[in-house]
Amino acid sequence: MNAINKTHSLVVGLNVPAEVGMSIDEVSTPALIVDLDAFENNVKIMRDFIRKTGVRHRAHAKTHKSADIALYQIEHGDACGICCQKVAEAEALVDGGIKDVLVSNQVVDPKKIDRLAQLAKKARVLVCVDDISNVDDLSAAASKHKVTIECLVEIDCGAGRCGVQWGDPVVAIARKIAASNGLTFSGIQAYQGAAQHIHDFEERKGKIDIAVKQVSETIDMLKAEGLECDIIGGAGTGTYYFEGESGIYNEMQCGSYIFMDADYQRVKDQSGGLISEFENSLFILTSVMSKAKPDKAICDAGLKAQSVDSGLPVIYGRDDIEYIKCADEHGVITDPNNTLKLNDRLKLVPGHCDPTCNVYDWFVGVRGDKVECLWPITARGMAF
Amino acid sequence: MNAINKTHSLVVGLNVPAEVGMSIDEVSTPALIVDLDAFENNVKIMRDFIRKTGVRHRAHAKTHKSADIALYQIEHGDACGICCQKVAEAEALVDGGIKDVLVSNQVVDPKKIDRLAQLAKKARVLVCVDDISNVDDLSAAASKHKVTIECLVEIDCGAGRCGVQWGDPVVAIARKIAASNGLTFSGIQAYQGAAQHIHDFEERKGKIDIAVKQVSETIDMLKAEGLECDIIGGAGTGTYYFEGESGIYNEMQCGSYIFMDADYQRVKDQSGGLISEFENSLFILTSVMSKAKPDKAICDAGLKAQSVDSGLPVIYGRDDIEYIKCADEHGVITDPNNTLKLNDRLKLVPGHCDPTCNVYDWFVGVRGDKVECLWPITARGMAF
Repeated sequence: MNAINKTHSLVVGLNVPAEVGMSIDEVSTPALIVDLDAFENNVKIMRDFIRKTGVRHRAHAKTHKSADIALYQIEHGDACGICCQKVAEAEALVDGGIKDVLVSNQVVDPKKIDRLAQLAKKARVLVCVDDISNVDDLSAAASKHKVTIECLVEIDCGAGRCGVQWGDPVVAIARKIAASNGLTFSGIQAYQGAAQHIHDFEERKGKIDIAVKQVSETIDMLKAEGLECDIIGGAGTGTYYFEGESGIYNEMQCGSYIFMDADYQRVKDQSGGLISEFENSLFILTSVMSKAKPDKAICDAGLKAQSVDSGLPVIYGRDDIEYIKCADEHGVITDPNNTLKLNDRLKLVPGHCDPTCNVYDWFVGVRGDKVECLWPITARGMAF
Repeated sequence: MNAINKTHSLVVGLNVPAEVGMSIDEVSTPALIVDLDAFENNVKIMRDFIRKTGVRHRAHAKTHKSADIALYQIEHGDACGICCQKVAEAEALVDGGIKDVLVSNQVVDPKKIDRLAQLAKKARVLVCVDDISNVDDLSAAASKHKVTIECLVEIDCGAGRCGVQWGDPVVAIARKIAASNGLTFSGIQAYQGAAQHIHDFEERKGKIDIAVKQVSETIDMLKAEGLECDIIGGAGTGTYYFEGESGIYNEMQCGSYIFMDADYQRVKDQSGGLISEFENSLFILTSVMSKAKPDKAICDAGLKAQSVDSGLPVIYGRDDIEYIKCADEHGVITDPNNTLKLNDRLKLVPGHCDPTCNVYDWFVGVRGDKVECLWPITARGMAF
């Protein structure tokens, strides 16, 4: 299950959309396809960036939830390990062969803390903390299972979700972690999630400048207490070059760069152009299933084939037609020149790749027009 | 797998959030829970309506994708069969024991047509048609597999998706179906999908009045050609009382009524009140996982735990707090009075039930505070 060219022996049916060796035209739609050339190139671009800057990259597996892809990122992309967001996701990916996992999120439920500690018997396990009472619970579970859980204190550097304020609150939690049995204080989590999709370059940069300053001052305060940060982590596909070149962050956590999506492709570079170093490699393959009107076509990829929270999908390589409406099971496509016919296939760039991957069981890896591999979406639906 | 009180013997782990007999407070979150009292009452209300009006009800399984629930609707709700939207969904539900399935959608891909014909060996199979060339393909597959496929001609009565115009185009396709080997012309599909969620009563009624008129005139034209409609089907949770009492429609296709969702609860009755005959029975059980700020809490149900296409979820039974933002893995909840604490549990009414069910593997059935059953979401992800 762990090599990109591994041939899976599967029967196409109920929930298996393709088999290795078939033409892309034979894949049952809707299906999630990965253009392997583009995917591999995206991994290479990020690898070259981390080689150049010397920062580590802990690839975010919440995007793809696939053990195969995570292992590829480690093997071919020099990733030092992975991030994920849920304990069940970490369990599935460790089962799939990953040895170094940061749950870049809080784990506060007693049963989940216990599962996290058990997982630390099989892999290096790190977790984020933003509440001082959580430290006791993590320590008790780590002691019970005779393991070490590494902890990062999470700073809310602008996303407005989890995390404490920079400075003193971080130091207080870090001090407690360092003094607790079974735990190691390993550093800081400072991911500016709200900056990633800001389309304007200067505005986006401004958000990360603030984060870098907060992180930098906090590190100095920690140092003054004798608390060293092995990991100063954060950064996503929309901002990684800021954190990566900051001289402060030393571990990036990019996810979407391997696939890209329609919204990330609206994010602009310094000169107002697209941040075009990454190519689209993820597509929803869809078919026209109704053509009862000359100026409209209905395709078979609706709300159950994607997430439209960040906007509708974009039809790849076609400026003459547009996906304008998404219903439960249908997409409505304009067809002003009446060019589409039944069973025509289109490639959609999803509006938002992460939650779109979460509704599929398989990535269908294609090279050119041929299916080269099937990757199970190992942690699909593992939200708890 | 087919009885509502069946005890599943499962180990809670990776993707199993609960076990029968546990308290709701022990369920791993986020989880999709069904309040069985409310669910059963919703089924009973619809059963009473069809008994009173004499129309049939072909319950729409696209909402729940569960064989257990479909069988309950047939056994306890007098449903005459089910609808679903995809061939893979139909295959999974027939495997789960359903004997009468309408794919209330077009099936035009040659491989899917072949699978549909094979399914007709195991169950009564009906499908919608809106293209005359599709009739030949369906007929060839039915003849090849020596089965009968029943066909409904779909009218676009205002939804703007699949379906031909009422009148002559329907008659032309119906005539061809009736003359084709292996096929039976069984009637008309006329679902006004765009009317279901119109909040204003009179506006909603106006849309169905138009549909009823189109259907009625088409039936007369078919009759003049000797083509009788066994099924005149359509209607959803937002409009069923119009179609059900129209004297024209004879088979309803409601889905959401068993669960309801936040958007359906914005749909008003004649006097401007809520269409309150159905109760909320479906909830996302979520936990507070971060409480680093006094006026805000972060819960563990984000975009991978629901679909927000029809709006954010509503927190059940709490007017003092509000779910205001949904990220991939997090929900942001206002907490102006700082009442929430870590691990507090909340019940969310999903914004849109159908695509929300599609991201879970299990319904956790609860009665009062106790888990009574686990129902697999049989056709989860089966979009092709």
